[in-house]
Amino acid sequence: MEIGFSYTRIDECIENLARITNLSIEAVTVDLDEALNKIAYDTITSPIDIPPYDRSAVDGYALCSEATTSASPSNPIPLVIKNKGNKIDCSEALPVSTGDRLPLGADAVVMLEDTYTDNTRNIVYITRSVPKYLNVSRMGEDIKRGDTIVEKGRLIKPWHIAAVAAIGLSKIRVYRGIKIGVITVGSELKSGGIDVYSEGGVIDVTSKLLMSSLREYEFIEPKWYGIVEDSEEKIALLLHRAVIENDIVITSGGTGPGSRDVTFNVLNFLRNEMKIGIISRGVAMRPGRPTTIATINGKPLFMLSGFPIAAYIALRVLVVPFIARLLNIQGIEPIEVPAILTRRAVGSIGYDVFARIKAYRCEDSICAEPIAIHGSGVLRTLMDANAILHIKHNLEGFDKGDKVWIQIL
Amino acid sequence: MEIGFSYTRIDECIENLARITNLSIEAVTVDLDEALNKIAYDTITSPIDIPPYDRSAVDGYALCSEATTSASPSNPIPLVIKNKGNKIDCSEALPVSTGDRLPLGADAVVMLEDTYTDNTRNIVYITRSVPKYLNVSRMGEDIKRGDTIVEKGRLIKPWHIAAVAAIGLSKIRVYRGIKIGVITVGSELKSGGIDVYSEGGVIDVTSKLLMSSLREYEFIEPKWYGIVEDSEEKIALLLHRAVIENDIVITSGGTGPGSRDVTFNVLNFLRNEMKIGIISRGVAMRPGRPTTIATINGKPLFMLSGFPIAAYIALRVLVVPFIARLLNIQGIEPIEVPAILTRRAVGSIGYDVFARIKAYRCEDSICAEPIAIHGSGVLRTLMDANAILHIKHNLEGFDKGDKVWIQIL
Repeated sequence: MEIGFSYTRIDECIENLARITNLSIEAVTVDLDEALNKIAYDTITSPIDIPPYDRSAVDGYALCSEATTSASPSNPIPLVIKNKGNKIDCSEALPVSTGDRLPLGADAVVMLEDTYTDNTRNIVYITRSVPKYLNVSRMGEDIKRGDTIVEKGRLIKPWHIAAVAAIGLSKIRVYRGIKIGVITVGSELKSGGIDVYSEGGVIDVTSKLLMSSLREYEFIEPKWYGIVEDSEEKIALLLHRAVIENDIVITSGGTGPGSRDVTFNVLNFLRNEMKIGIISRGVAMRPGRPTTIATINGKPLFMLSGFPIAAYIALRVLVVPFIARLLNIQGIEPIEVPAILTRRAVGSIGYDVFARIKAYRCEDSICAEPIAIHGSGVLRTLMDANAILHIKHNLEGFDKGDKVWIQIL
Repeated sequence: MEIGFSYTRIDECIENLARITNLSIEAVTVDLDEALNKIAYDTITSPIDIPPYDRSAVDGYALCSEATTSASPSNPIPLVIKNKGNKIDCSEALPVSTGDRLPLGADAVVMLEDTYTDNTRNIVYITRSVPKYLNVSRMGEDIKRGDTIVEKGRLIKPWHIAAVAAIGLSKIRVYRGIKIGVITVGSELKSGGIDVYSEGGVIDVTSKLLMSSLREYEFIEPKWYGIVEDSEEKIALLLHRAVIENDIVITSGGTGPGSRDVTFNVLNFLRNEMKIGIISRGVAMRPGRPTTIATINGKPLFMLSGFPIAAYIALRVLVVPFIARLLNIQGIEPIEVPAILTRRAVGSIGYDVFARIKAYRCEDSICAEPIAIHGSGVLRTLMDANAILHIKHNLEGFDKGDKVWIQIL
């Protein structure tokens, strides 16, 4: 174990951070059309039944189903067309359009194509037997009065928007965008074209991966603060600004064993001006061990590895689950599916291991092939992967042929 | 079978429409940061190896691994610190930072914590045996020259953005937004609060469901044209405008058996001014049978049911797959997973049936519970569902306990 590091379990980190942070995200009222993929701030229940009464689902004639029991093309049943009123008896039929309220006395609707009319005599002939409630949208069949339409914390999907519209709301309260500042640390890093390499530099890709991964969540507003060299003063300055401007701050790079650990040292630098709390120096996960979790003035700070995959995994398993835990978000959990391992996947006792997986359909199962890892950055493994296998800290791994649960990327 | 309808298979509709339409979507160049969830217009291959040379993955000393074979804390191996140059021999070590190119003669890097120095004598002691290539990011290990970074038609995810950045590009060509106009038909439909119901109207929810479902795709630019009553003239006017302004037009409502079928009749209305092609009047699917597919001036027109679920399913299985087929899009296919049916799910020979499913984890499988359907609109079934079961046209259905593939919503 490297000096100064103690590897805390992921779930413990999240719990401890949630307990200590004073982060609070307020509500904002938005037009319903803008609520998609935001997080509901309120639990909304229906004040009414929908439909609010039995109504016709087609254009046709409302009638008593009883009257048509023996109807057929060879035995058409004549009914008197009633053109007005909201009541019929079983010798009558009332023309209705889609959405019309059923008149009293009617319990079904026959479609136009199952009728013909004798207009001179004001008679409609019914050529089929119509069961009770045929072509009727029944009161409350869609949404019942008191039904929950959307719960507080729910990721708002298209059907929630439709249901909220159905109860007559055109605006909805959601959590405002969660502001996340991202700082990229590394003297070797440059933005630019491939000439960066010939000049001995390294093109920064970790910020691209982090920023675009954050942009996948429409309730997050990420802001990039650029690349800063391995200078404690310069990092401190940027961190100070990012903490003030955001709800959560993420750094990547300049951390962990084998580096000068500048990013962590910056916390000492800031102690005079800001309140620093260390949640965990090191997290019991692979990749991502050198991750540090802290609070600055009560705001969460995640200091991630500079390696793209390690930073990406930490975002998925630490940062996003922390936000989900804080706001009790439902609907952003990774999709977990059962699969058959095609090769052994090695874990690491004491660490939660996240293996990249190439999943594919094989006969009547999903096969999960662990991707061989040749290096620590290795974006390629993420490009080839479409799933992640979480090997829990108390497991040595899984054997070929084992049934495992994988998370779809 | 209703008069005038002939139910064509879904895949046949898509093929026929793709063959007949003259729809073409051009490229647009965007900043890499704006390319997320757009569709790549070009196949991009790497012009270089990444890393472009063997480089250090940590801060430490570059050395010959051979020289450290017997090193341990009790047997530290002394090496001469070489502070300059790009070449060492096996008695030397060169200080390196993360990202630095390995000097000639070096094949590994030892981390600072596995060393101590005697600065007066310019000697570093190595306290562990260092295997070849330890802490080295090898040339081409991430991306090899000629490797495909992203293929034409690929939905661009965060790792593609990172990889494109790694090869020095800051802009990328993507398909421009696909413009889809949505027209909502129905004299009974209103926008507004719950007083709509007491006034005998029906609140329009289908447009909310369609528009927000389309907004889920960041390469689609949907525009809503509002609600129009069942008037052929008024629908024709709006359709005319929507066809001019969009790549694809969707109508919902006013179609199918049991209605006055106004939306379809509008096509006759427009024949004088615009070139109309009928691909299919009716589609062999449930829900969604009354769907009509046509072209207007070569542009695709989907005339969907006014019922929210039917319209939503048609969007998922007809409209989006048509776009995917046209641009050869990879990466937006629904995620299909194996599951065990908890109840019988009834199909309909000749029709592709899409049953809403409540999927949940049960022991080491996923259980799939078909949701009972009480009505034809019934938004509730979509709110309760998290998956869809496609029962193909040649199947009578599945029994309780059958292993099926469900699509995650």
